[in-house]
Amino acid sequence: SLGPELHCRCISTERKPIGRHIEKVELIPANSHCEETEIIATLKKTGQEVCLDPEAPWVKKVIEKIMSNRRR
Amino acid sequence: SLGPELHCRCISTERKPIGRHIEKVELIPANSHCEETEIIATLKKTGQEVCLDPEAPWVKKVIEKIMSNRRR
Repeated sequence: SLGPELHCRCISTERKPIGRHIEKVELIPANSHCEETEIIATLKKTGQEVCLDPEAPWVKKVIEKIMSNRRR
Repeated sequence: SLGPELHCRCISTERKPIGRHIEKVELIPANSHCEETEIIATLKKTGQEVCLDPEAPWVKKVIEKIMSNRRR
């Protein structure tokens, strides 16, 4: 990546709880180019990137689980 | 990124609370190639990547702050 994006990257967010398919998660804090935190998950196997809703309870749990370092 | 890394990426972690310099954060859950969660922050301006300790209280606070969507 060559510096910050110049706009929000997410158009829509994933509704289904896909926590177990997540390989990694990128957290982009609100900044001058996008006024909301953006969360972009990369999925295992496909490498597909999907946006997650920072307000969704299942997303918060996924982040907490990763932070607590428990294996799945 | 073309799939999971085959080893842990972090050798050491940042001790200083550099939350305000963070442009984005990558969370990599523990997986078969690395038994600990890894957190890699990209810094504003320099684009430098630094590893953060998931257990460090200041790191947890940074993640919580990003998730709560409060601007810095």
